[in-house]
Amino acid sequence: MESNKDKLSIIALGGVNEIGKNMYVIQYNDDIVIIDCGSKFPDESLLGIDLIIPDISYLIENKDKVRGLVITHGHEDHIGGIPYIIKQFNMPIYATRLTLGIIQGKLKEHGLLGTTTLHEIDANASLTLGAIPLSFFRTNHSIPDCLGIVFDTPQGVVVHTGDFKFDLTPVNEQYADIHKMAAIGQNGVLALLSDSTNAERPGFTPSERFVGDHIEAAFAKATGKIFLSTFASNVNRLQQVIAAAEKTNRKIALLGRSMVNVVDIALSLGYLRMTPDMLIEAQDVNRYSPNELVILCTGSQGEPMAALARLASGTHRQVEVSPGDTVILAATPIPGNERNVARIVDHLFARGVKVIYGSGSVTGMHVSGHASQEELKLMLTLMKPKYFIPIHGEYRMLHQHRLLAEAVGVDSDNIFIINNGEAVDFTSSKARQGRHVPNGNTLVDGLGIGDVGHIVLRDRKVLSEDGILIFVLTLSKSDGKIVSGPDIISRGFVYVKESEALMEEVHRIALTTITQLQEAKTSQWGLYKQGLKEAVGKYLYFQAKRRPMILPIIIQV
Amino acid sequence: MESNKDKLSIIALGGVNEIGKNMYVIQYNDDIVIIDCGSKFPDESLLGIDLIIPDISYLIENKDKVRGLVITHGHEDHIGGIPYIIKQFNMPIYATRLTLGIIQGKLKEHGLLGTTTLHEIDANASLTLGAIPLSFFRTNHSIPDCLGIVFDTPQGVVVHTGDFKFDLTPVNEQYADIHKMAAIGQNGVLALLSDSTNAERPGFTPSERFVGDHIEAAFAKATGKIFLSTFASNVNRLQQVIAAAEKTNRKIALLGRSMVNVVDIALSLGYLRMTPDMLIEAQDVNRYSPNELVILCTGSQGEPMAALARLASGTHRQVEVSPGDTVILAATPIPGNERNVARIVDHLFARGVKVIYGSGSVTGMHVSGHASQEELKLMLTLMKPKYFIPIHGEYRMLHQHRLLAEAVGVDSDNIFIINNGEAVDFTSSKARQGRHVPNGNTLVDGLGIGDVGHIVLRDRKVLSEDGILIFVLTLSKSDGKIVSGPDIISRGFVYVKESEALMEEVHRIALTTITQLQEAKTSQWGLYKQGLKEAVGKYLYFQAKRRPMILPIIIQV
Repeated sequence: MESNKDKLSIIALGGVNEIGKNMYVIQYNDDIVIIDCGSKFPDESLLGIDLIIPDISYLIENKDKVRGLVITHGHEDHIGGIPYIIKQFNMPIYATRLTLGIIQGKLKEHGLLGTTTLHEIDANASLTLGAIPLSFFRTNHSIPDCLGIVFDTPQGVVVHTGDFKFDLTPVNEQYADIHKMAAIGQNGVLALLSDSTNAERPGFTPSERFVGDHIEAAFAKATGKIFLSTFASNVNRLQQVIAAAEKTNRKIALLGRSMVNVVDIALSLGYLRMTPDMLIEAQDVNRYSPNELVILCTGSQGEPMAALARLASGTHRQVEVSPGDTVILAATPIPGNERNVARIVDHLFARGVKVIYGSGSVTGMHVSGHASQEELKLMLTLMKPKYFIPIHGEYRMLHQHRLLAEAVGVDSDNIFIINNGEAVDFTSSKARQGRHVPNGNTLVDGLGIGDVGHIVLRDRKVLSEDGILIFVLTLSKSDGKIVSGPDIISRGFVYVKESEALMEEVHRIALTTITQLQEAKTSQWGLYKQGLKEAVGKYLYFQAKRRPMILPIIIQV
Repeated sequence: MESNKDKLSIIALGGVNEIGKNMYVIQYNDDIVIIDCGSKFPDESLLGIDLIIPDISYLIENKDKVRGLVITHGHEDHIGGIPYIIKQFNMPIYATRLTLGIIQGKLKEHGLLGTTTLHEIDANASLTLGAIPLSFFRTNHSIPDCLGIVFDTPQGVVVHTGDFKFDLTPVNEQYADIHKMAAIGQNGVLALLSDSTNAERPGFTPSERFVGDHIEAAFAKATGKIFLSTFASNVNRLQQVIAAAEKTNRKIALLGRSMVNVVDIALSLGYLRMTPDMLIEAQDVNRYSPNELVILCTGSQGEPMAALARLASGTHRQVEVSPGDTVILAATPIPGNERNVARIVDHLFARGVKVIYGSGSVTGMHVSGHASQEELKLMLTLMKPKYFIPIHGEYRMLHQHRLLAEAVGVDSDNIFIINNGEAVDFTSSKARQGRHVPNGNTLVDGLGIGDVGHIVLRDRKVLSEDGILIFVLTLSKSDGKIVSGPDIISRGFVYVKESEALMEEVHRIALTTITQLQEAKTSQWGLYKQGLKEAVGKYLYFQAKRRPMILPIIIQV
């Protein structure tokens, strides 16, 4: 029974105002259920950082309330944080079979298998975590086995869509549970959290079958080897590649670790089907004639170390592209990756290869896994939520999603665009936005988690732009006179040989500064350091418009 | 009269296999004419580099043969290198009035005005540089006063298109000289060099008037202030903004240095027309009501320091955006700039502003200045060249341009895709590709030109990713014992406070390494340095997957 003190809270710990590191919290009184645990890649301002995961201070503070982590699907922005988070804080994980398979692979890689409990669920499961009953519905996306989640709290029903689109002709018969969604909406939804990735795109995202048709047509035309690069996790697309390969009597080889891993998992769990002799080892490719081969490879986003980039530059150990081959980029470059992808296309053309590249909507070789505007309106219409929280998107996407919700009749006062770390609290079915919990980006650098921050990054930025100049000076303890130095060591600054005059002048300025301080009988090292930094810094900026890090090291002997 | 020894050469010193730093050389025996002198921005791998210009070693080697520099138009990728190049090597410059105006502004900024001779030409000019007669034809582009160039050499006619499109309804009546182009083609063209920027795009690039219509419609609807951001140099677009502002009784204010500069030059030279009282000072904006204002601003590519970014973040000194205002991004983000532009749109939406953004072909607010496939075929058809050299584009663009040339009947053996530094040599009207001259990227870093190279950049990369660890060790000259240290200084590595255990272990390893070397009676500093680097480097990579720069400094006293 609901009392006035009963409180339901929806909190974002990651995933709003960004694409990546999704993590949401549903809390009802003393029970917390976490949705997803993603990672994201840093932008270029975070020098040297490998990965970003959510700051989970809030969860650690409330450790005894956390009942479990429920995963909507197996993409990195929903599961990539798991190995780092469970080292800090162990909790049971609930996910579908394929998603669990991918998570297990990831835990194995980090040497963490067996450190946490994994529970397999499916769209028909129902479970109760603490006092919160959960049920699920199946959605379409660019990876199989995706879930939407229904939290049937005493304050009302909260629905989290996960990532979704409506694919009415899905590959592998993985239909979305539209009737179930309609029933959920009919029974009343207090709050909907819905995927905003494509809220800027008009229309209805095409079915994955659209890609299958184009793959088949391209395979029918190709004469040499066929290379097709796509996201490894798009298992349904891989299934269509297999179908097209079967029709054209081609074998399939796999290049790239994630492609091998995903195909392995998907085959063993039955999400991918092929006759056993179709799959050949990459090292055996040269035993077949070109027109008997399809090579599925990673690197469709232009990743410099992935298979496609190596093929394009002719540095792949096992396979090479030859004039007359066809390379299909079955992916649209994500903003930021265009240049790397373009460079690969350049190299492939220079090798005399036919390349099918560019936007998927033009080539037909890619469709998005996310709902466009008409589908988002369909989800809002099915769910008829009282309150709406657009999630999974940058601000303009959340903003456009808000406009869509208003257009289908959600009260504009009941729509909350929240920040990471912000809660929407429901008491007596009234909602209020604005409470904040600790949140942020936890930076992963090598094996270090959270040990790099603002000052370290600021130093890396200075070092990256103009390098470092180190002054080593030995002074006598007894009389303060120079014993040796100042010696100047530079790294990442300029070629010393080509800048002799500049470096001589720097030396002269350093010596003058030290002499002046000695004449003033200064005995504080700090003043020497300050003086050197200022005098040399000013000179270099005036003379060369450069600001290297200046690091004086003074030794008294 | 042509003799067998007479040789015509076409050389690219910049602009092929890249977008940017255009510079081409036409050489007939001992006469060299240079076309354009551009710059380009570095990609993110060139840490700290401000600008890239062509390596002009070939021109310096052949200094006495250079007759002049002819500029096709006033964009940075065609003129941006001038201030740096003429410091190394002075030569007369030929350009149209607006182009010269922009070059003069640039020379003034660099304190170089008067150091070189500037000659004003127009599309009807003809001149002879050395033994090479030049004439010109007018083209359409996204800046007024553009030229194609005709070199009437004894070996045959060489045509360089400059950047172009065919705009059959140009703003400001700047029609392209199509009849002149037809006549040039009719008289016979030996070789055509043509702009490949949009060779991947099907169709015909829309007229600039298309943008004017959309600007007018948006202005008619807007109620608050209107902000419009576009490339300052697109003077014809500015003219259309002025027209729309006049129709809606709005004044115009300018934000951003390049916007102020270009409007100033274009007004004074008569390329832009407006009634004098229309233009108001930025500081007077607040004296007008919002619906009386159009604010033209820089920053349409998301440049973090430009006017639009400051407006979006609320940090502009003079003007602010308010709820109800309209911001028009009259530009399509160039690949690589999408994220910065998206961030600005996010901020503007958060301020309650209406934003018109995204691809120009969807919003109608931008058209390209470059010819699409049908226009490229039209140029090839008009010129009927015997030989064709696609220029001004990355490899895949040159490749697509080659396919277009083949489609309109150019012999595929007569099409040369060249590299920067590569020449096509014509003797007795036969062409041969493959001779190479010195070439490359000259890097501009602050005021330094060419003093940063491979090793400096490699150091910057290491420093940017994991910072630097400096070991300072003082050893006694007499007995080789440690006088002080090893002291460890780190910058850009990790927070030392949060990594105490790691740093203590590093210190222990350093001390052990030194002690071992002392016991082995090593007296060479080099071995100490090597030993420290190896021991600490291995430990940090194993323990933390990090590879900071390790710099041991050993002082003997």
